[in-house]
Amino acid sequence: MDFTEKFVSRDDRFKGRIFSVSVDDIIQPDGKPSKREVVHHNGAVCVAPLTDDNTLAFVRQYRYPMAEVMLELPAGRIEPGEDPVETAKRELIEEAGLTTIECIPFGVDYPTPGYSTEKIYLYGARIGGTCPTNPDEGEFVEKVYIPLAEAEEMAYDGTITDSKTAMLVLRVAKAVREGRL
Amino acid sequence: MDFTEKFVSRDDRFKGRIFSVSVDDIIQPDGKPSKREVVHHNGAVCVAPLTDDNTLAFVRQYRYPMAEVMLELPAGRIEPGEDPVETAKRELIEEAGLTTIECIPFGVDYPTPGYSTEKIYLYGARIGGTCPTNPDEGEFVEKVYIPLAEAEEMAYDGTITDSKTAMLVLRVAKAVREGRL
Repeated sequence: MDFTEKFVSRDDRFKGRIFSVSVDDIIQPDGKPSKREVVHHNGAVCVAPLTDDNTLAFVRQYRYPMAEVMLELPAGRIEPGEDPVETAKRELIEEAGLTTIECIPFGVDYPTPGYSTEKIYLYGARIGGTCPTNPDEGEFVEKVYIPLAEAEEMAYDGTITDSKTAMLVLRVAKAVREGRL
Repeated sequence: MDFTEKFVSRDDRFKGRIFSVSVDDIIQPDGKPSKREVVHHNGAVCVAPLTDDNTLAFVRQYRYPMAEVMLELPAGRIEPGEDPVETAKRELIEEAGLTTIECIPFGVDYPTPGYSTEKIYLYGARIGGTCPTNPDEGEFVEKVYIPLAEAEEMAYDGTITDSKTAMLVLRVAKAVREGRL
Protein backbone atom coordinates (compact mmCIF):
# COMPACT_ATOMS: atom_id res chain seq x y z
CA MET A 1 0.00 0.00 0.00
CA ASP A 2 1.14 3.52 -0.80
CA PHE A 3 0.95 5.60 2.42
CA THR A 4 1.83 8.90 0.71
CA GLU A 5 -0.25 11.95 1.60
CA LYS A 6 -0.56 14.27 -1.37
CA PHE A 7 -0.09 18.03 -1.02
CA VAL A 8 -2.98 20.19 -2.29
CA SER A 9 -2.41 23.68 -0.91
CA ARG A 10 -0.68 25.54 1.91
CA ASP A 11 -2.13 28.17 4.22
CA ASP A 12 0.64 30.12 6.01
CA ARG A 13 -0.56 30.90 9.53
CA PHE A 14 2.49 32.10 11.49
CA LYS A 15 5.87 33.53 10.49
CA GLY A 16 8.43 33.68 13.30
CA ARG A 17 12.15 34.13 13.69
CA ILE A 18 12.76 30.49 14.76
CA PHE A 19 9.98 28.69 12.87
CA SER A 20 6.84 29.25 10.82
CA VAL A 21 3.53 27.39 10.76
CA SER A 22 1.22 26.35 7.94
CA VAL A 23 -1.98 24.35 7.71
CA ASP A 24 -1.87 22.28 4.53
CA ASP A 25 -4.73 20.69 2.64
CA ILE A 26 -3.76 17.15 1.72
CA ILE A 27 -5.27 13.98 0.24
CA GLN A 28 -5.01 10.89 2.46
CA PRO A 29 -3.99 7.46 1.09
CA ASP A 30 -7.70 6.52 1.09
CA GLY A 31 -8.48 9.49 -1.16
CA LYS A 32 -10.17 11.58 1.53
CA PRO A 33 -9.20 15.25 2.00
CA SER A 34 -7.65 16.26 5.31
CA LYS A 35 -5.45 18.94 6.90
CA ARG A 36 -1.94 18.79 8.34
CA GLU A 37 -0.51 21.35 10.78
CA VAL A 38 3.20 21.83 10.08
CA VAL A 39 6.00 23.63 11.94
CA HIS A 40 8.57 24.65 9.31
CA HIS A 41 12.11 24.71 10.71
CA ASN A 42 15.41 25.11 8.85
CA GLY A 43 17.12 22.33 10.81
CA ALA A 44 19.78 22.26 13.49
CA VAL A 45 23.04 20.62 14.52
CA CYS A 46 24.29 19.10 17.75
CA VAL A 47 27.98 18.44 18.43
CA ALA A 48 29.71 16.23 21.00
CA PRO A 49 33.11 17.86 21.72
CA LEU A 50 35.48 15.30 23.21
CA THR A 51 38.79 15.90 25.02
CA ASP A 52 41.79 13.60 24.51
CA ASP A 53 40.94 11.83 27.81
CA ASN A 54 37.32 11.24 26.71
CA THR A 55 35.53 13.95 28.64
CA LEU A 56 32.58 15.70 26.93
CA ALA A 57 31.94 19.45 26.97
CA PHE A 58 28.27 20.22 27.66
CA VAL A 59 26.39 23.50 28.09
CA ARG A 60 23.79 24.30 30.71
CA GLN A 61 21.16 26.78 29.63
CA TYR A 62 17.66 27.88 30.55
CA ARG A 63 15.00 26.55 28.19
CA TYR A 64 12.02 28.87 28.40
CA PRO A 65 9.37 26.43 27.02
CA MET A 66 10.34 23.84 29.67
CA ALA A 67 11.03 26.45 32.41
CA GLU A 68 14.16 24.48 33.30
CA VAL A 69 17.93 24.81 33.15
CA MET A 70 18.95 21.88 30.94
CA LEU A 71 22.16 20.01 30.24
CA GLU A 72 22.77 19.75 26.48
CA LEU A 73 25.58 19.27 24.02
CA PRO A 74 26.37 22.44 22.02
CA ALA A 75 23.70 22.91 19.36
CA GLY A 76 22.10 25.51 17.18
CA ARG A 77 20.01 26.32 14.17
CA ILE A 78 21.36 26.08 10.62
CA GLU A 79 21.35 29.47 8.92
CA PRO A 80 19.74 29.56 5.46
CA GLY A 81 22.26 28.18 2.94
CA GLU A 82 24.73 27.09 5.64
CA ASP A 83 26.41 23.66 5.47
CA PRO A 84 25.53 21.74 8.69
CA VAL A 85 29.24 21.00 9.32
CA GLU A 86 29.95 24.74 9.30
CA THR A 87 27.03 25.30 11.70
CA ALA A 88 28.54 22.68 14.00
CA LYS A 89 31.97 24.36 14.01
CA ARG A 90 30.37 27.80 14.48
CA GLU A 91 28.19 26.70 17.43
CA LEU A 92 31.15 24.99 19.05
CA ILE A 93 32.98 28.31 19.05
CA GLU A 94 29.98 30.50 19.93
CA GLU A 95 28.53 28.39 22.77
CA ALA A 96 31.50 26.47 24.14
CA GLY A 97 34.59 28.42 23.07
CA LEU A 98 36.05 25.32 21.47
CA THR A 99 37.60 24.63 18.08
CA THR A 100 37.97 21.38 16.17
CA ILE A 101 39.71 20.15 13.04
CA GLU A 102 37.04 17.69 11.98
CA CYS A 103 33.36 16.94 12.67
CA ILE A 104 32.44 13.25 12.27
CA PRO A 105 28.77 12.65 11.30
CA PHE A 106 26.66 10.58 13.72
CA GLY A 107 23.38 10.46 11.83
CA VAL A 108 20.39 12.75 11.46
CA ASP A 109 17.74 12.94 14.15
CA TYR A 110 14.04 13.74 13.50
CA PRO A 111 12.81 15.12 16.84
CA THR A 112 9.11 15.58 16.00
CA PRO A 113 8.37 14.15 12.54
CA GLY A 114 4.62 14.11 13.17
CA TYR A 115 4.27 17.90 12.95
CA SER A 116 7.67 19.50 12.29
CA THR A 117 10.13 19.49 9.38
CA GLU A 118 13.12 19.85 11.72
CA LYS A 119 16.15 17.60 11.15
CA ILE A 120 19.06 17.65 13.60
CA TYR A 121 22.49 16.75 12.19
CA LEU A 122 24.62 15.04 14.85
CA TYR A 123 28.42 15.27 14.98
CA GLY A 124 31.26 14.10 17.19
CA ALA A 125 34.48 16.10 17.32
CA ARG A 126 37.84 15.90 19.05
CA ILE A 127 38.52 19.28 20.67
CA GLY A 128 41.36 21.11 18.90
CA GLY A 129 41.74 24.17 21.10
CA THR A 130 39.95 26.87 23.05
CA CYS A 131 38.85 30.37 22.01
CA PRO A 132 36.58 33.10 23.41
CA THR A 133 32.86 32.21 23.34
CA ASN A 134 30.52 34.36 21.27
CA PRO A 135 26.96 33.63 22.41
CA ASP A 136 23.95 34.89 20.47
CA GLU A 137 22.18 37.98 21.85
CA GLY A 138 20.09 36.79 24.82
CA GLU A 139 21.86 33.42 25.05
CA PHE A 140 23.36 32.61 28.46
CA VAL A 141 25.24 29.33 28.68
CA GLU A 142 27.61 27.69 31.15
CA LYS A 143 30.16 25.08 30.04
CA VAL A 144 30.28 21.79 32.00
CA TYR A 145 32.73 18.91 31.47
CA ILE A 146 31.48 15.36 32.16
CA PRO A 147 33.44 12.12 31.59
CA LEU A 148 32.01 10.17 28.66
CA ALA A 149 31.31 7.03 30.75
CA GLU A 150 29.32 9.10 33.26
CA ALA A 151 27.44 10.91 30.49
CA GLU A 152 26.56 7.54 28.93
CA GLU A 153 24.94 6.45 32.22
CA MET A 154 23.03 9.78 32.37
CA ALA A 155 21.72 9.23 28.84
CA TYR A 156 20.63 5.68 29.65
CA ASP A 157 18.95 6.46 32.99
CA GLY A 158 17.07 9.55 31.75
CA THR A 159 19.06 12.16 33.69
CA ILE A 160 19.76 13.74 30.30
CA THR A 161 16.30 14.70 29.05
CA ASP A 162 17.33 16.50 25.85
CA SER A 163 16.64 14.05 23.07
CA LYS A 164 19.44 14.95 20.61
CA THR A 165 21.99 15.08 23.44
CA ALA A 166 21.08 11.67 24.90
CA MET A 167 21.15 10.00 21.46
CA LEU A 168 24.47 11.57 20.46
CA VAL A 169 26.14 10.69 23.77
CA LEU A 170 25.24 7.00 23.32
CA ARG A 171 26.44 6.91 19.69
CA VAL A 172 29.71 8.66 20.59
CA ALA A 173 30.32 6.35 23.56
CA LYS A 174 29.97 3.32 21.29
CA ALA A 175 32.24 4.89 18.64
CA VAL A 176 34.95 5.60 21.21
CA ARG A 177 34.73 2.04 22.54
CA GLU A 178 35.17 0.79 18.97
CA GLY A 179 38.06 3.16 18.21
CA ARG A 180 36.09 5.13 15.60
CA LEU A 181 36.45 8.54 17.32
CA MET B 1 24.21 32.99 38.08
CA ASP B 2 20.43 32.70 37.72
CA PHE B 3 19.63 31.86 34.08
CA THR B 4 15.84 32.14 34.52
CA GLU B 5 13.89 34.05 31.88
CA LYS B 6 10.90 35.79 33.42
CA PHE B 7 7.47 35.67 31.79
CA VAL B 8 5.88 39.07 31.10
CA SER B 9 2.97 38.43 28.72
CA ARG B 10 1.73 35.98 26.12
CA ASP B 11 0.47 36.72 22.62
CA ASP B 12 -1.46 33.73 21.19
CA ARG B 13 -0.73 33.53 17.48
CA PHE B 14 -2.00 30.13 16.28
CA LYS B 15 -4.49 27.63 17.66
CA GLY B 16 -4.41 24.22 16.00
CA ARG B 17 -5.67 20.73 16.68
CA ILE B 18 -2.18 19.30 17.39
CA PHE B 19 -0.42 22.34 18.84
CA SER B 20 -0.76 26.09 19.39
CA VAL B 21 1.79 28.89 19.10
CA SER B 22 2.43 31.98 21.20
CA VAL B 23 5.01 34.74 21.16
CA ASP B 24 5.85 35.63 24.76
CA ASP B 25 7.43 38.80 26.10
CA ILE B 26 10.12 37.83 28.60
CA ILE B 27 12.92 39.40 30.64
CA GLN B 28 16.37 37.90 30.03
CA PRO B 29 18.79 37.09 32.90
CA ASP B 30 20.63 40.35 32.09
CA GLY B 31 17.41 42.34 32.62
CA LYS B 32 16.81 43.04 28.93
CA PRO B 33 13.37 42.43 27.38
CA SER B 34 13.09 39.84 24.62
CA LYS B 35 10.59 37.57 22.89
CA ARG B 36 10.27 33.76 22.83
CA GLU B 37 8.34 31.83 20.18
CA VAL B 38 6.71 28.78 21.78
CA VAL B 39 4.93 25.71 20.36
CA HIS B 40 2.48 24.54 23.04
CA HIS B 41 1.95 20.77 22.95
CA ASN B 42 0.13 18.55 25.45
CA GLY B 43 2.84 15.87 25.42
CA ALA B 44 3.07 12.40 23.97
CA VAL B 45 4.03 8.83 24.78
CA CYS B 46 6.13 6.21 23.00
CA VAL B 47 5.98 2.50 23.86
CA ALA B 48 8.36 -0.36 23.06
CA PRO B 49 6.21 -3.54 22.89
CA LEU B 50 8.41 -6.58 23.36
CA THR B 51 7.57 -10.22 22.63
CA ASP B 52 8.74 -13.03 24.94
CA ASP B 53 11.60 -13.80 22.53
CA ASN B 54 12.74 -10.12 22.54
CA THR B 55 11.36 -8.93 19.23
CA LEU B 56 10.00 -5.37 19.08
CA ALA B 57 6.76 -4.34 17.36
CA PHE B 58 7.24 -1.17 15.30
CA VAL B 59 4.89 0.77 13.04
CA ARG B 60 5.67 2.19 9.63
CA GLN B 61 3.75 5.33 8.73
CA TYR B 62 3.96 8.29 6.39
CA ARG B 63 5.09 11.47 8.11
CA TYR B 64 3.85 14.39 6.07
CA PRO B 65 6.32 17.05 7.37
CA MET B 66 9.27 14.80 6.41
CA ALA B 67 7.59 13.42 3.24
CA GLU B 68 8.85 9.97 4.25
CA VAL B 69 7.52 6.64 5.45
CA MET B 70 9.20 6.22 8.84
CA LEU B 71 9.85 3.35 11.20
CA GLU B 72 8.72 4.24 14.73
CA LEU B 73 7.64 2.58 17.93
CA PRO B 74 3.91 3.06 18.66
CA ALA B 75 3.32 6.60 19.93
CA GLY B 76 0.69 9.23 20.25
CA ARG B 77 -0.48 12.41 21.88
CA ILE B 78 -1.73 12.55 25.46
CA GLU B 79 -5.37 13.65 25.57
CA PRO B 80 -6.12 16.49 28.01
CA GLY B 81 -6.34 15.03 31.53
CA GLU B 82 -5.13 11.58 30.43
CA ASP B 83 -2.50 9.70 32.46
CA PRO B 84 0.51 8.98 30.17
CA VAL B 85 0.41 5.27 31.10
CA GLU B 86 -3.19 5.09 29.87
CA THR B 87 -2.16 6.88 26.65
CA ALA B 88 0.55 4.27 26.18
CA LYS B 89 -1.87 1.35 26.59
CA ARG B 90 -4.43 3.06 24.33
CA GLU B 91 -1.91 3.74 21.54
CA LEU B 92 -0.61 0.19 21.77
CA ILE B 93 -4.11 -1.06 21.03
CA GLU B 94 -5.04 1.60 18.44
CA GLU B 95 -1.83 1.53 16.38
CA ALA B 96 -0.42 -1.95 16.91
CA GLY B 97 -3.36 -4.10 18.05
CA LEU B 98 -1.42 -5.18 21.11
CA THR B 99 -2.29 -5.33 24.80
CA THR B 100 -0.03 -5.31 27.83
CA ILE B 101 -0.37 -5.79 31.58
CA GLU B 102 2.25 -3.27 32.61
CA CYS B 103 4.11 -0.30 31.12
CA ILE B 104 7.58 0.25 32.64
CA PRO B 105 8.77 3.89 32.54
CA PHE B 106 11.99 4.61 30.58
CA GLY B 107 12.35 8.31 31.22
CA VAL B 108 10.93 11.48 29.68
CA ASP B 109 12.30 12.84 26.44
CA TYR B 110 12.34 16.56 25.51
CA PRO B 111 12.48 16.54 21.68
CA THR B 112 12.74 20.30 21.04
CA PRO B 113 13.14 22.15 24.36
CA GLY B 114 14.36 25.32 22.62
CA TYR B 115 10.94 26.19 21.22
CA SER B 116 8.36 23.56 22.24
CA THR B 117 6.80 22.45 25.53
CA GLU B 118 6.44 18.86 24.33
CA LYS B 119 7.53 16.05 26.66
CA ILE B 120 7.49 12.43 25.47
CA TYR B 121 6.96 9.76 28.13
CA LEU B 122 8.82 6.57 27.20
CA TYR B 123 7.66 3.07 28.21
CA GLY B 124 8.69 -0.51 27.68
CA ALA B 125 6.05 -3.25 27.81
CA ARG B 126 5.92 -7.02 27.47
CA ILE B 127 3.18 -7.86 24.97
CA GLY B 128 0.21 -9.54 26.69
CA GLY B 129 -1.99 -10.35 23.71
CA THR B 130 -3.37 -9.15 20.39
CA CYS B 131 -6.59 -7.31 19.55
CA PRO B 132 -8.02 -5.46 16.54
CA THR B 133 -6.27 -2.17 15.77
CA ASN B 134 -8.27 1.04 15.93
CA PRO B 135 -6.32 3.76 14.11
CA ASP B 136 -7.31 7.42 14.31
CA GLU B 137 -9.19 8.83 11.34
CA GLY B 138 -6.63 9.42 8.59
CA GLU B 139 -3.93 7.32 10.29
CA PHE B 140 -2.50 4.49 8.15
CA VAL B 141 0.05 2.29 9.85
CA GLU B 142 1.72 -1.04 9.14
CA LYS B 143 3.08 -3.23 11.93
CA VAL B 144 6.67 -4.51 11.58
CA TYR B 145 8.48 -6.90 13.96
CA ILE B 146 12.25 -6.47 14.35
CA PRO B 147 14.52 -8.42 16.74
CA LEU B 148 15.73 -6.19 19.59
CA ALA B 149 19.43 -6.77 18.81
CA GLU B 150 18.88 -5.71 15.18
CA ALA B 151 16.84 -2.67 16.27
CA GLU B 152 19.64 -1.67 18.66
CA GLU B 153 22.09 -1.63 15.74
CA MET B 154 19.63 0.44 13.68
CA ALA B 155 19.33 2.97 16.52
CA TYR B 156 23.10 3.21 16.88
CA ASP B 157 23.91 3.51 13.16
CA GLY B 158 21.20 6.09 12.41
CA THR B 159 18.92 3.84 10.32
CA ILE B 160 16.20 4.74 12.84
CA THR B 161 15.84 8.50 12.45
CA ASP B 162 12.91 9.04 14.82
CA SER B 163 14.43 10.48 17.97
CA LYS B 164 12.10 8.99 20.62
CA THR B 165 12.20 5.58 18.94
CA ALA B 166 16.01 5.41 18.75
CA MET B 167 16.42 6.50 22.39
CA LEU B 168 13.81 4.07 23.69
CA VAL B 169 15.23 1.13 21.71
CA LEU B 170 18.67 1.68 23.26
CA ARG B 171 17.29 2.00 26.82
CA VAL B 172 15.12 -1.10 26.40
CA ALA B 173 18.01 -3.13 24.94
CA LYS B 174 20.14 -2.29 27.99
CA ALA B 175 17.27 -3.12 30.37
CA VAL B 176 16.74 -6.52 28.74
CA ARG B 177 20.48 -7.28 28.94
CA GLU B 178 20.36 -6.43 32.65
CA GLY B 179 17.20 -8.47 33.28
CA ARG B 180 15.09 -5.39 34.12
CA LEU B 181 12.43 -5.98 31.41
